[in-house]
Amino acid sequence: MSSRYFRKRSHKAGLPPGALVPIGKATSVSTTIDSIIFNSDELIVNQSIDASDIDAHVEDTRILWLDVKGLKQIDAVEMIGRKFNLHPLVLEDILNSAQRPKIEDYNDYLFIVIKSLRYDDVDFVTETEQISFILGKNFVITLRDVESPLFEPVIQRLKVRKSKLRESKVDYLTYSCIDLIIDNYFLILEKIGDRIETIEDALVSKPSHQTLGQIHKLKTDLIFLRKSLWPLREIISRMLGGDIPFINESLRPYLRDLFDHAIHAIDTVETFRDITSGMIDIYLSSVNNRLNETMRVLTIIATIFIPLTFLCGWYGMNFDDMPELKWRYGYPMVITLAIAVASSMLFYFRKKKWI
Amino acid sequence: MSSRYFRKRSHKAGLPPGALVPIGKATSVSTTIDSIIFNSDELIVNQSIDASDIDAHVEDTRILWLDVKGLKQIDAVEMIGRKFNLHPLVLEDILNSAQRPKIEDYNDYLFIVIKSLRYDDVDFVTETEQISFILGKNFVITLRDVESPLFEPVIQRLKVRKSKLRESKVDYLTYSCIDLIIDNYFLILEKIGDRIETIEDALVSKPSHQTLGQIHKLKTDLIFLRKSLWPLREIISRMLGGDIPFINESLRPYLRDLFDHAIHAIDTVETFRDITSGMIDIYLSSVNNRLNETMRVLTIIATIFIPLTFLCGWYGMNFDDMPELKWRYGYPMVITLAIAVASSMLFYFRKKKWI
Amino acid sequence: MSSRYFRKRSHKAGLPPGALVPIGKATSVSTTIDSIIFNSDELIVNQSIDASDIDAHVEDTRILWLDVKGLKQIDAVEMIGRKFNLHPLVLEDILNSAQRPKIEDYNDYLFIVIKSLRYDDVDFVTETEQISFILGKNFVITLRDVESPLFEPVIQRLKVRKSKLRESKVDYLTYSCIDLIIDNYFLILEKIGDRIETIEDALVSKPSHQTLGQIHKLKTDLIFLRKSLWPLREIISRMLGGDIPFINESLRPYLRDLFDHAIHAIDTVETFRDITSGMIDIYLSSVNNRLNETMRVLTIIATIFIPLTFLCGWYGMNFDDMPELKWRYGYPMVITLAIAVASSMLFYFRKKKWI
Amino acid sequence: MSSRYFRKRSHKAGLPPGALVPIGKATSVSTTIDSIIFNSDELIVNQSIDASDIDAHVEDTRILWLDVKGLKQIDAVEMIGRKFNLHPLVLEDILNSAQRPKIEDYNDYLFIVIKSLRYDDVDFVTETEQISFILGKNFVITLRDVESPLFEPVIQRLKVRKSKLRESKVDYLTYSCIDLIIDNYFLILEKIGDRIETIEDALVSKPSHQTLGQIHKLKTDLIFLRKSLWPLREIISRMLGGDIPFINESLRPYLRDLFDHAIHAIDTVETFRDITSGMIDIYLSSVNNRLNETMRVLTIIATIFIPLTFLCGWYGMNFDDMPELKWRYGYPMVITLAIAVASSMLFYFRKKKWI
Amino acid sequence: MSSRYFRKRSHKAGLPPGALVPIGKATSVSTTIDSIIFNSDELIVNQSIDASDIDAHVEDTRILWLDVKGLKQIDAVEMIGRKFNLHPLVLEDILNSAQRPKIEDYNDYLFIVIKSLRYDDVDFVTETEQISFILGKNFVITLRDVESPLFEPVIQRLKVRKSKLRESKVDYLTYSCIDLIIDNYFLILEKIGDRIETIEDALVSKPSHQTLGQIHKLKTDLIFLRKSLWPLREIISRMLGGDIPFINESLRPYLRDLFDHAIHAIDTVETFRDITSGMIDIYLSSVNNRLNETMRVLTIIATIFIPLTFLCGWYGMNFDDMPELKWRYGYPMVITLAIAVASSMLFYFRKKKWI
Repeated sequence: MSSRYFRKRSHKAGLPPGALVPIGKATSVSTTIDSIIFNSDELIVNQSIDASDIDAHVEDTRILWLDVKGLKQIDAVEMIGRKFNLHPLVLEDILNSAQRPKIEDYNDYLFIVIKSLRYDDVDFVTETEQISFILGKNFVITLRDVESPLFEPVIQRLKVRKSKLRESKVDYLTYSCIDLIIDNYFLILEKIGDRIETIEDALVSKPSHQTLGQIHKLKTDLIFLRKSLWPLREIISRMLGGDIPFINESLRPYLRDLFDHAIHAIDTVETFRDITSGMIDIYLSSVNNRLNETMRVLTIIATIFIPLTFLCGWYGMNFDDMPELKWRYGYPMVITLAIAVASSMLFYFRKKKWI
Repeated sequence: MSSRYFRKRSHKAGLPPGALVPIGKATSVSTTIDSIIFNSDELIVNQSIDASDIDAHVEDTRILWLDVKGLKQIDAVEMIGRKFNLHPLVLEDILNSAQRPKIEDYNDYLFIVIKSLRYDDVDFVTETEQISFILGKNFVITLRDVESPLFEPVIQRLKVRKSKLRESKVDYLTYSCIDLIIDNYFLILEKIGDRIETIEDALVSKPSHQTLGQIHKLKTDLIFLRKSLWPLREIISRMLGGDIPFINESLRPYLRDLFDHAIHAIDTVETFRDITSGMIDIYLSSVNNRLNETMRVLTIIATIFIPLTFLCGWYGMNFDDMPELKWRYGYPMVITLAIAVASSMLFYFRKKKWI
Repeated sequence: MSSRYFRKRSHKAGLPPGALVPIGKATSVSTTIDSIIFNSDELIVNQSIDASDIDAHVEDTRILWLDVKGLKQIDAVEMIGRKFNLHPLVLEDILNSAQRPKIEDYNDYLFIVIKSLRYDDVDFVTETEQISFILGKNFVITLRDVESPLFEPVIQRLKVRKSKLRESKVDYLTYSCIDLIIDNYFLILEKIGDRIETIEDALVSKPSHQTLGQIHKLKTDLIFLRKSLWPLREIISRMLGGDIPFINESLRPYLRDLFDHAIHAIDTVETFRDITSGMIDIYLSSVNNRLNETMRVLTIIATIFIPLTFLCGWYGMNFDDMPELKWRYGYPMVITLAIAVASSMLFYFRKKKWI
Repeated sequence: MSSRYFRKRSHKAGLPPGALVPIGKATSVSTTIDSIIFNSDELIVNQSIDASDIDAHVEDTRILWLDVKGLKQIDAVEMIGRKFNLHPLVLEDILNSAQRPKIEDYNDYLFIVIKSLRYDDVDFVTETEQISFILGKNFVITLRDVESPLFEPVIQRLKVRKSKLRESKVDYLTYSCIDLIIDNYFLILEKIGDRIETIEDALVSKPSHQTLGQIHKLKTDLIFLRKSLWPLREIISRMLGGDIPFINESLRPYLRDLFDHAIHAIDTVETFRDITSGMIDIYLSSVNNRLNETMRVLTIIATIFIPLTFLCGWYGMNFDDMPELKWRYGYPMVITLAIAVASSMLFYFRKKKWI
Repeated sequence: MSSRYFRKRSHKAGLPPGALVPIGKATSVSTTIDSIIFNSDELIVNQSIDASDIDAHVEDTRILWLDVKGLKQIDAVEMIGRKFNLHPLVLEDILNSAQRPKIEDYNDYLFIVIKSLRYDDVDFVTETEQISFILGKNFVITLRDVESPLFEPVIQRLKVRKSKLRESKVDYLTYSCIDLIIDNYFLILEKIGDRIETIEDALVSKPSHQTLGQIHKLKTDLIFLRKSLWPLREIISRMLGGDIPFINESLRPYLRDLFDHAIHAIDTVETFRDITSGMIDIYLSSVNNRLNETMRVLTIIATIFIPLTFLCGWYGMNFDDMPELKWRYGYPMVITLAIAVASSMLFYFRKKKWI
């Protein structure tokens, strides 16, 4: 049974650090490796290459981008690790789909983990994809735990000769990928903005127990979005801070822009959280108002008819000697009395603005 | 369908950074460019100049202020970008009406984005205008996504010879514009202060479900106001921090004053938020009190008449042998009993201070 | 119509910075200027001097204290500004009764704005007085927006020969004035402490809708008190930080003491806020308890008498053939049944601890 | 009338700084001075010495500990102040029982103010004792606003020859006193921990309006505990930070331990606050549940008997021509109908799990 | 009687610092000492050695790991303290089961205290184990207050020749132990994640007073988890910060990984806290909804039958002269009227969507 809020890692406790045990989604999708070799003059794309053939793709002058999708074949990941001389802990983190986003500088290479979110319009579910970047002098390795067309736009732009992507180094390629991931966050935020409006309208027109469930779901989604976004901000901030290898000075304006977008996304999440928290109050007040209305109906009906019923009960008594019963105008008198009681009650309620 | 809380930027995801795609309002208003050239001696105003004629307006000694209103004609923006050698990301940010306020130093020029808010008295809606400043050695370019008379007072003061504006450099002009924008925030805060008072009075006299809606609206407005003001504070703080080109030491007292105003505005927003949050409690308590009152009316009526009705029912029974029914003082006795029951109930309620 | 929470400054938007437009109270009280000249040997007090005569009072060796009360005569303020060479923004801030407390170093003089609060015992209203200090080499100018005996104790102590005030420089005089202002804050805090106790007692004995109004008023007062106190702390902290002209090293212990008092006041405000926030819960719970009690009374009465009424109704039916009606012990049987029903209900309620 | 939350200091406003006006408890307990002179070889204890004899006790080589209990005799405090050359503000702070805990370095001596709390088991009241430390080269003066056996354990340990206390300097003596004070905080925290458990058990078994009062009292106590503890942390942190005279390097491990205890106490207070805040929710929910139960009883009774009463009422009508009244099986039919109605209602409630 | 939230330490107040008084669990489990001596070539395990034999185990070249389980025999702890020259305060902290996690550098050795949590599946209780590490040049002493198989996996890995553990120094051994402890935190977090899901499902399907108890328990557990985790983060951060003896540069990547895990655990706790806080709202809303439903049933029944009962009562009056009673179609008319009243009420409720 899978956990909604926490990826199982129980079976890992007690193993030595660096043990390659896939956690979460990483286990389920089989591995495909695409190799893209390019410089300003040429671009060679090899799809679905074999992990053992990677050697043939490593280059001295041109830039190599290895895009690894699915992490089921641990030996392929291990082979890449050996070839590029990666630390065992890096491989462990790559295989752990519950890894927290982070950036780590291993001198020979830069290791970045980022989460990409995609909104599934059919099931209204937010899907997470974890992407690890290994950034070396002239290679970028991206390892992702699911198979998705996420980087398609970057590959398309790479195919254009004289494009900035083709003319630049590994840093601009990495930036382009991260930019794409952040753009996806804005798509999610749009959907959430729409959901907030829908719920607000529902709160005004016809709030139901279901509405509260939606608010709870919304709040939980925002909590998780926030949890993904904050480390992203730290990562870009670290990249901006300088002292990071393979990130050139010329990338600064772009990173600054990226940072700006990350802040904007975080701001929006916080704003959404603020708006959402106020909704509960409106919901509870609506429920209270409805209770009030129910009670008012009951009170009006009961308050008018209980005294009248008493009146009837009174003259329904069987005493031998009740003079009113024999009066000529006894019955009309009671009719008048009943109308007077009912009218005065109605008048009282109208004065209280209950009806 | 436009989103209340978030500007659509879906169509932008996947495009290369620096791609000029207008987002939000920027798309809808066509571009007008006013050129103002001045020094202490002369002032030349050219309204609605052509983007391709800008070259003729660029000056070496005098100061040029290009005021661009409406951003629909992307080619005009691009032409300005080429002429003043602006970074593609700057142009991208200018065209994005959902841009977060920020300041960025590009060495050759300073790039500032600020949001101006205007309260529409007719529709009770707060309207946002995004203003981008490009600040060079002897030029200031302001680009705004809507057409508005926002800068009219600055232009009027500029027309006065020997005014400080005419005698100063680009920094004082920029300061004057930002000062105007912050003054507008205070106008909004005044309106919100009035709304808070109106709601507080309503809470005391006659709270309704509508009142809660107003509180929610107020809270949402304050959240957005805050979101616009915090970055403004950062921007002015950065300008004050020094190390910013084209901002002279002599501007410091003015910037300090500006910073002071920004802090004051933020303080006021936070105070308003604190006051508003307490209102929900009063509202909920009012609703509860009304429920209490309804229930009290019901309980009083029911508690007086239900025992009396029982009494009547008792002597309405048809047993052949009910001695009381034949007693001479049976009926007067029941009348006395009924009065006693009702009185003791009323006495009990009076003691409980329910009536 | 004046705003409860925000001083109008609408008419100021668009004017050049430094324009002398009084805001708030500053407009209403006419200007009186007292001049006090002193050194350790002599003390000369001139009350209600003319603004144009100030020149005659400026000194080289002795210390001049100009106490300006009421700011209606803008030209008097302007004359002082010209004489002491004050920046236009300083004059603008002095005339703005909605100015945020602050300290600003203009090299030739120090500019401090502080708010003094006074509790009006008659109307239970907290009154604000804004005091601007201009601190030069051998002069102190205090400008206040209302006429009040605030500084009377300082003037009395100044009259005592050999007192520390007479022997010291401008910094000790300023310190003495600020010390007085902070002492006033403690008087307000005492009153608020009393109000908290009164409300707590009311919550226990007899909470009413009025009590909630008092809690709301209390919370609002604490919000404003806090808003006045935090900047005061910053001001004293800045004075303590050194690098401030005209503040001598020998004043340090006194400033440290002042800082300590400011922190103490802020601490107390925060504590009061914490205590107050818990009160709403008690109030709401009291309201709920009362509703519970009302409902219990209704339920007890209804639950005892409704079944009994049914019993009476049953034997009030007119069927020709109801054998019980003819039984000899029919009526006593019903009496017994009624007593049994009522007793078992009462027993049930007693077991539930409802009565 | 004394204030629960704030010590009166109204009569002090306007007096010059350094004026010796006792505030709070300081006024009520008369002064006793104990003198303890010791070095590793000897220990001389003189109880209840006269303030004017202090001169005779000051030492060059041995360490003098003056323990002043009760501050009613201001002249004794003044005499000590003159003898040890204390700043007027120090004396003012000592006499102010509402002083905030703090540490101040006066070069010739160190001035520390700390609050000790003691839980009174009889009245369930937390009592505060304010202790001022004056720490010089070879003297320690402790001034306390009440008479209590607080330092008894330290004095007992001092009497033991070769004990670390006897062998050490003034810093270790001061540390031992503060350690004792912090240990007392843990005793209070234990009591509060017990109270939390008692309240939690009451919330589960039988919550009453009294329980809420206890929660409010608990929260208020925690607020005050926190207010005393935070400055204590700052004080020890300052002592640890170095640059403080008379505190030797060898005391570091002990101060670190003290700091650790202070943090632990603060942590516990924060944890208690978190737990307590959740209690209100449980209480309110209990009240709501009880209301629910009351309403359910009422609804069940009313819903069963109201239709039955209607049935009886129907056949209690006096129409001349009601055929059912004459039917042979009319009465049995009504009995059957009544049982059917009651059963179906009971079945409905059982299905709803109300009974 | 033991306290749920706070370990008693009352009997310790007043004792000199460094007094060896066990607090909490430390008192109850008798002491066993295991000695493990190893280098890359050999591994010698001695179980249950005598405290007085420790001398024989201390080594110059190989690494000694003393694993002390249970702290009842204080003299054994004292003997270790004397042998390894530990500060009295260190021994005091080891024996105090209520010690806050911390790291302290005593130059000759490093002292670390950490709490390990274990979830007991049988009793649903979280059990705490306190582990003190003494880290010297070539020895590690672990002292734990309970007997548990916690370090079993480390010992197993140590038995493997050529393993990284056998080849490394004391720092990697310590790291491996702490890594194990943090892995255990993730197991607890998993269990809590499961509990959150169970509660969320219960909230949707059938919330009861018990559910609220579970939420309160969950919140309290999260508060304590958080209290254990935050200091852990500080400890690892200090170890990462450098300047700590016996921690080699080569351990950095491992410590960074540990830090990452600690942050991840803290993040998860905070996320859980956010989710949990929203649950109370849903619970209260459910209770309110149920009240609403109850009241609706009552109101529908009462509102339909009370007017009908009045109708019956009316024609149950015994006036001599009530013409309707004698009408031919009197009874059918009343039947029609009753059906009309009931139908119109039902129609009204249907329109209001109550039925």
